[in-house]
Amino acid sequence: MGVVVSLSVARDPQASLAPLVALVQEDMAHVNRLILDRARSNVELIPELARHLIDSGGKRLRPMLTLASARLCGYEGDAHVRLAAAVEFMHTATLLHDDVVDESNLRRGRKTARLLWGNEASVLVGDFLLGQAFKMMVDVGSLGALRILSDAAAIIAEGEVMQLMTAKNTDTTEDDYLAVIDAKTAALFSAAAEVGGVIAGKPKSEQAALRSYGRNLGLAFQLVDDALDYSGEQATLGKSVGDDSREGKITLPVVLCYRRGSAEERSFWQRTLHDGEIGEHDLDEAMNLLKKHSALSDTMERARHYGAIARDALAIFPESKPKSAMLEAIAFSVDRPY
Amino acid sequence: MGVVVSLSVARDPQASLAPLVALVQEDMAHVNRLILDRARSNVELIPELARHLIDSGGKRLRPMLTLASARLCGYEGDAHVRLAAAVEFMHTATLLHDDVVDESNLRRGRKTARLLWGNEASVLVGDFLLGQAFKMMVDVGSLGALRILSDAAAIIAEGEVMQLMTAKNTDTTEDDYLAVIDAKTAALFSAAAEVGGVIAGKPKSEQAALRSYGRNLGLAFQLVDDALDYSGEQATLGKSVGDDSREGKITLPVVLCYRRGSAEERSFWQRTLHDGEIGEHDLDEAMNLLKKHSALSDTMERARHYGAIARDALAIFPESKPKSAMLEAIAFSVDRPY
Repeated sequence: MGVVVSLSVARDPQASLAPLVALVQEDMAHVNRLILDRARSNVELIPELARHLIDSGGKRLRPMLTLASARLCGYEGDAHVRLAAAVEFMHTATLLHDDVVDESNLRRGRKTARLLWGNEASVLVGDFLLGQAFKMMVDVGSLGALRILSDAAAIIAEGEVMQLMTAKNTDTTEDDYLAVIDAKTAALFSAAAEVGGVIAGKPKSEQAALRSYGRNLGLAFQLVDDALDYSGEQATLGKSVGDDSREGKITLPVVLCYRRGSAEERSFWQRTLHDGEIGEHDLDEAMNLLKKHSALSDTMERARHYGAIARDALAIFPESKPKSAMLEAIAFSVDRPY
Repeated sequence: MGVVVSLSVARDPQASLAPLVALVQEDMAHVNRLILDRARSNVELIPELARHLIDSGGKRLRPMLTLASARLCGYEGDAHVRLAAAVEFMHTATLLHDDVVDESNLRRGRKTARLLWGNEASVLVGDFLLGQAFKMMVDVGSLGALRILSDAAAIIAEGEVMQLMTAKNTDTTEDDYLAVIDAKTAALFSAAAEVGGVIAGKPKSEQAALRSYGRNLGLAFQLVDDALDYSGEQATLGKSVGDDSREGKITLPVVLCYRRGSAEERSFWQRTLHDGEIGEHDLDEAMNLLKKHSALSDTMERARHYGAIARDALAIFPESKPKSAMLEAIAFSVDRPY
């Protein structure tokens, strides 16, 4: 594993998701119950497949953002629980469809639903979860929250199509890449955080601050994800090192490496990513090039940039326990090892 | 084509969709403009693929139901146009995902999107259209309509999963089959008709009548569709005779035939539908069995039963041009040749 690039340099080992998890712990228990309840169906396959996803132990960062934002805004009702569950269902539906599109066999260290139950079931159960997500939002009855989340749903799908179009295209610029992750990842982070302020009836300025916090946290999170794809240890990350590369996904580490590289190096990327001709030692070679051009550490640097914007977005809120937890979630996201 | 079973017996050749089409013509022009507008995206593939679907010349029965119901209820606003467009987007998203699940290459006589642009694009553009559908509903701002249509979205997906589970299962009963088409087809017909009454602010009794009209029309429509799969001429129907059979779909004609058949006939259906071993002359043999057991004409008879319920559902409304057009749409649906 000598080629695994260490990212430990500027890492803040203190930063943790623990304060955020503790803050929303009680609400999250309600969210989990609601998720299990809404994944029920007389069609056996649906709860079976849904439970597989629910048990797969994601970070649940998106619903936590909704819960934390609501707490930050002093919200006292229970609509945040339903919106958080809806956000998680939207995310889960996207994962199901993503795995079909990417033909992925492994996610978070476990077999994907499409491998276990087939592409057909994954497409349709994804649709079911999306329908249930909208039902929960409608139950809440906030047209403001509905508008934000339905906008996000369309934008996410648009981002996924955009990603499909840029796949294998080594001409992808950093801006192209940013447009993709802005849509496919940051849009839901942004909406998840914003709706917490909306149901609390907070002024537009605070809703906008939460939206900006969520968006920039999402950008930072995805940038780190894309760096970790080439550096994380498989056991921690739950997928294989270099998965993106094998799928011809052009993420920022590759964009930087390609553009900074020699003509010879560019033909290496052309062959492996564009033409999909991947030999035994090509992952090692990719890792060497990523190291040579500091592509991973610079990707992390970009993540810190967006993390800093997310931090400033929260500045207008007075100090509080929720605010500290949300700030520490940024620090964790930009320096996380998994 | 000697084995194509004629359904012309009790057909009412006068019944036509023309009055319904004429009734909503002006509104439908607005719907079509809105559909084109909302299928726009900077991601080129989206409008390209959407236009393929829009140009493919479906009957647009579902959005017409929303428009006609609104007219029947004397609705004067313009929300029905947006809801009708949302209904058509929901339907189109379902078709896109259906074709992926069924691996269909032909729909309405044209190549399917998945054949032209791939499964990945079909899944993701379906998601995009569903997102746009919800955005349009949210624009209308009627929580009642939102509830009905988001319920329908979840039920449709549930019905599709149910269909996936019953595929190739010759034990499927008529009740199982009805549960599937109630969810995958009738739910959207029902919701499409009901929301027209909801935005017009009509009393619950009239909303319920429209819901019942839509549901039973949807059941009748799907029953006839499933009969036509074995009897329609390919040119009229735009798909191949026996497509359902080749996909192992257990529709009512087969359910009836299987249950009424001899042990030998049952092993024929087991081999062709369950085991998927289909020989050169098996479609002919299937047609012969369908004829022998009057399976197609009895399927049409069941369709007339639901058509009659749909007709009675509208009885509480006073005579009017919209009502006549909606009644004639039933007559057309149960006796249509395509």
